[in-house]
Amino acid sequence: MNKAVVLVSGGLDSATALGIAREKGFECYALSVDYGQRHRSELIAAQNIARSLGAHAHQIIRLDMTVFGGSALTDQSIAVPVGHQKEHTDTIAIPVTYVPARNTIFLSLALAWAETLDCRDIFVGVNAVDYSGYPDCRPEYIQAFENMANLATKATLGGKLFTIHAPLVHLTKKEIIQTGIDLGIDYSTTISCYQADVKGRACGQCDSCHIRRDGFVALGVPDPTLYQ
Amino acid sequence: MNKAVVLVSGGLDSATALGIAREKGFECYALSVDYGQRHRSELIAAQNIARSLGAHAHQIIRLDMTVFGGSALTDQSIAVPVGHQKEHTDTIAIPVTYVPARNTIFLSLALAWAETLDCRDIFVGVNAVDYSGYPDCRPEYIQAFENMANLATKATLGGKLFTIHAPLVHLTKKEIIQTGIDLGIDYSTTISCYQADVKGRACGQCDSCHIRRDGFVALGVPDPTLYQ
Repeated sequence: MNKAVVLVSGGLDSATALGIAREKGFECYALSVDYGQRHRSELIAAQNIARSLGAHAHQIIRLDMTVFGGSALTDQSIAVPVGHQKEHTDTIAIPVTYVPARNTIFLSLALAWAETLDCRDIFVGVNAVDYSGYPDCRPEYIQAFENMANLATKATLGGKLFTIHAPLVHLTKKEIIQTGIDLGIDYSTTISCYQADVKGRACGQCDSCHIRRDGFVALGVPDPTLYQ
Repeated sequence: MNKAVVLVSGGLDSATALGIAREKGFECYALSVDYGQRHRSELIAAQNIARSLGAHAHQIIRLDMTVFGGSALTDQSIAVPVGHQKEHTDTIAIPVTYVPARNTIFLSLALAWAETLDCRDIFVGVNAVDYSGYPDCRPEYIQAFENMANLATKATLGGKLFTIHAPLVHLTKKEIIQTGIDLGIDYSTTISCYQADVKGRACGQCDSCHIRRDGFVALGVPDPTLYQ
């Protein structure tokens, strides 16, 4: 059984990515990062998701990214914007919820764990359709990371290369939710909200809540999200 | 004055990279990582180096890489090999002191800090001549990381790209030491040893000690290293 490291944030997308990895027959090693995020309850959601979706192991690694700041998610003095961000701009502006180099750091940690596990497959739930416009969610970024990863490690010197799987990258939120429902994922346990409270209840106001709710509406299924 | 983030481990190479960055006129932001390394005294050396070489700021970020293990530097049950590693092999074998994805993680952290500082220059003291053969010290790896970084962040969407400076990559250890001496660096404060003791004294036996000592011998200057 081949192993895969799967980045699991606790949100809807990464839960779906984990479900897909398992469906493909991988033994899954879920990795979450406690980076000082505002919505810390997502880490509890990540634990529940890893367990319910049969991850072989789940690691939460601590890295205090608040020392860098520069994001509403890691700096309490920057407010999370209310409303759907794309509606407020003509061009795609990157919202203040963008966390500098977050996916690069997370994928690098996944790469380290993958190498020690002697595994060559990494799954990440990035999406470049119904998303907040973050640059590190685009397919060209994922490809560049994979190219770099295949020069970065001792593991690939024998020629067996890493694959960064981004199975959701070209899907709409509606399609992602349909995929997850087909896989039997219970989305009520996932947290997408940028400012979920300690009980894991969503604000219903932030960009992530809007994108998520729009997905359930588009699919025509009940939104299982617990709101504040 | 342009800013640069400089990865400073506490060793001879990164001290030289910091000296070069300052010589080039950058305001330097030194970054070190407390990753659970065996040779923790290098972090004290990093603080001294950052101060003595005039870094504008110095950040030590904690990340417990012992959870991944897979290296003699992060797993106390794996011994640091004695002797010059290249002497023992016909082909270049990567020693057990290799830490999975270390430079990728460190450069990713540097990228995050650089983005929040609105800085586009990152210095790293990797070297691919007199080194232990680590894949993440090769010029093709550094180029691939730079390519990835320029797709990873909000910072570069305006077209002003990141440069990963690896000024030592093609130098011999002798040339690195000569460069540092010309810049007035006091190498007695740097720690290269993989198993330096709590007082910062080197073992004189490991690969890193061998490569370092050979550099001073080749240059014909006294080795200022404090040995156990």
